[in-house]
Amino acid sequence: MDSTRAVTGRLAEFIVGSRWQDIPEPVRREGMRSVLNFIGCALGGSQDEAVGLAAGVLAPYFGPAQAGVFGRRERPDALYAAFLNAVSANVLEYDDTHLPTVIHPAAPVAPGLFALAEQRSVSGSQLLHAFILGVEAACRIGKAVMPTHYRRGWHITASCGIFGAAAAAGKLIGLDRRQMIWAFGHAATQSAGLVESLGSMSKSIGVGNAAKNGLAAALFAEVGFTAAEQPIEGRYGFAPVTSDSISYDAITAKLGESWEILANAYKPYPCGVVLFPVIDACLELRQHIPAVEQIAQVTVRGHPLMRERADRPAVETGREAKVSIQHSVAVALLDGAAGLAQYTDRRVADPTVRALRARVAFEEDAGVPVEAAVVMLRLADGSSFTEHVRDGRGTPGRPMSDDELDGKVRELAAFGTPFVDAPALIAAIRGIERESDAGRIVGLAVPAPR
Amino acid sequence: MDSTRAVTGRLAEFIVGSRWQDIPEPVRREGMRSVLNFIGCALGGSQDEAVGLAAGVLAPYFGPAQAGVFGRRERPDALYAAFLNAVSANVLEYDDTHLPTVIHPAAPVAPGLFALAEQRSVSGSQLLHAFILGVEAACRIGKAVMPTHYRRGWHITASCGIFGAAAAAGKLIGLDRRQMIWAFGHAATQSAGLVESLGSMSKSIGVGNAAKNGLAAALFAEVGFTAAEQPIEGRYGFAPVTSDSISYDAITAKLGESWEILANAYKPYPCGVVLFPVIDACLELRQHIPAVEQIAQVTVRGHPLMRERADRPAVETGREAKVSIQHSVAVALLDGAAGLAQYTDRRVADPTVRALRARVAFEEDAGVPVEAAVVMLRLADGSSFTEHVRDGRGTPGRPMSDDELDGKVRELAAFGTPFVDAPALIAAIRGIERESDAGRIVGLAVPAPR
Repeated sequence: MDSTRAVTGRLAEFIVGSRWQDIPEPVRREGMRSVLNFIGCALGGSQDEAVGLAAGVLAPYFGPAQAGVFGRRERPDALYAAFLNAVSANVLEYDDTHLPTVIHPAAPVAPGLFALAEQRSVSGSQLLHAFILGVEAACRIGKAVMPTHYRRGWHITASCGIFGAAAAAGKLIGLDRRQMIWAFGHAATQSAGLVESLGSMSKSIGVGNAAKNGLAAALFAEVGFTAAEQPIEGRYGFAPVTSDSISYDAITAKLGESWEILANAYKPYPCGVVLFPVIDACLELRQHIPAVEQIAQVTVRGHPLMRERADRPAVETGREAKVSIQHSVAVALLDGAAGLAQYTDRRVADPTVRALRARVAFEEDAGVPVEAAVVMLRLADGSSFTEHVRDGRGTPGRPMSDDELDGKVRELAAFGTPFVDAPALIAAIRGIERESDAGRIVGLAVPAPR
Repeated sequence: MDSTRAVTGRLAEFIVGSRWQDIPEPVRREGMRSVLNFIGCALGGSQDEAVGLAAGVLAPYFGPAQAGVFGRRERPDALYAAFLNAVSANVLEYDDTHLPTVIHPAAPVAPGLFALAEQRSVSGSQLLHAFILGVEAACRIGKAVMPTHYRRGWHITASCGIFGAAAAAGKLIGLDRRQMIWAFGHAATQSAGLVESLGSMSKSIGVGNAAKNGLAAALFAEVGFTAAEQPIEGRYGFAPVTSDSISYDAITAKLGESWEILANAYKPYPCGVVLFPVIDACLELRQHIPAVEQIAQVTVRGHPLMRERADRPAVETGREAKVSIQHSVAVALLDGAAGLAQYTDRRVADPTVRALRARVAFEEDAGVPVEAAVVMLRLADGSSFTEHVRDGRGTPGRPMSDDELDGKVRELAAFGTPFVDAPALIAAIRGIERESDAGRIVGLAVPAPR
């Protein structure tokens, strides 16, 4: 094996050899915040129609009750628990985003770890360590195959997420270097997920499989089920098969020095990222509005990409509203919020919201950066107010604060699972490094037994 | 939806609308023969190390006992039964081959049907009908994306087999047109399997998943779990994402008139197809050999592709021997056979076989067609004999006869599962069209309960 080409081997060696004390404090902290955001999203999504249907289809095939599903009563085997938790965490499109690759890493990577934590003895720091390394693997592999991987049509959260799930589970169960390579091999040959599935429930199957099959990849490797020795870089390996622009350096350079999880971001609003500065501006402008009937006109000025992605005055469903400037402006001004309750089919159909959407215009301005927006409010009395936002909340220039993240998790829990004691759960996750039994966290996020 | 582009829709419509009486007799017959070959291969492979390891890894996650595994005692849920049966059927590389695409269609397509036959009321002709349609879907989709699909690195038996598994299961459970499109959508977003995995156990995960996830695709569609509406031909659909040479006509032309299963072939020997005429010639030449010590030299003349694929004088394992001219000649002359017993590690290590391999030479001759071979035998007394074989057994020009296929199935059963009453099983499969309960066939191919 040519050592300059042993890409999978070097990544496997790094993961197997990594020690908890090697993980810098800011990396641990961002890992914890990613887990917190993940569990919040899983709770918020847990009652979604797609999750309920999937749980119903799979229930006749569930194995022994091994692991919890956040926010739900089902207790399937570890593999289907991983599947369902990944679906819940991703279904609201409110989960984390690794900005350089647009991978949502936690949904595929975390579920297998929580499932294992209920079966084997796993401490909070062991789980966090494995999670950080899994995110590292998924995102580095993603960087290596971008941009043509996504452009060709691979749903990268699924197609690369599975490597993270395999690496994380493999770390937690203590695979050696050879086994870790095989785990990557089993992940590579199961990697799947098409962009064509986005916009339908089918997307969830890709994300659920990434979590489930990545965990299975590690379990197969554990018993010596052999796989390709160069599954990523081999002639017919994952990278050449799914990308026309490969950079193996993205996988092997600065391992242990540079950490991908530091580029992970959390959405403050459950909608398209281009809308974040618009919503921020509207929440500021709201103070000037005496009554909603006084709003004569709202004009949003933004980058051409904003028009392309979100200039959508007529919307019918909550899903469409998540990529509508007009709807986001209307609810932010009316409700002083742009949360889950603002993007339901019901809120979209509300006559007041509908009327206000009709008074929102968009003006393209290539001079406005993509992470910024300018919103002008004109009232019936002729007065007008303008708000410039340079960095929307949740963009790299203004990451979510701890308080904002806690607030988001409380909102998600209240939306999907009002029976969960959100403050206790948040406290437990914030203290995960000191937790001796990581499985205990799952117990805080499921309904009490009947 | 542009009707000239509604490729998935037209295929779905054909499958949903197909009636048993529309299936011509030769197509039914080849379907039956494919099922017979499938079950034989599953029995022969059922005790393979990879199957045992996979069953051991998955057993802790098995759901309720719903379906049998050919030749084994495990009784998992329907989804894992489909997985394990697909692995068994393919692991010996002795299964059927759809010649235009090199897809081995039965391993992914048939297992879900037998699993369903033990759960729902399914007659033999219903199962056979669904199987024929599933093979049709997998092979047509395969033709549409070849040759660049395989060349790029997709293990087509897995990546296209999943569509056949979904179509077959969907037909059996009675999906409507829209649901059948969704089943294809769920198949598309789960399609996976890399050529890089070939040569390791990991290949089996791809084939097992094709059967299992294809069945799941149909079950998800059945409850209204939505998917892409153009999962094959959409901008980011399966075909454009995995192929650079798409021919949608291969999917939509002559539906119901031309049948892919008629191009399905069964291997007479568990080795590379280029070796078939060589073995045939050696079995003829054997009559001239008074004693093995009298063999002075054997010379094989064949197409350059034969050298490339199989000119391999030094072999160490049964797996390597399956692509060795020298080993195949040696065992055919010594044993008068080239079956599973001739391609074991033990037979490869035998000193007599080893000595004879050393006396076998290959001569390249571009004038010899790839499906033919010339073998010259020279004895110690100076006499020599030459055998020309134009069409090897099991090649398109000389398909396996019914008797030969029955013999193969008996050999496979004796190799993997001597406890199975092979004649009774063969008779049941040959009478599958008259069988009111297709699940009964599984009962004939598993060990008696302890």
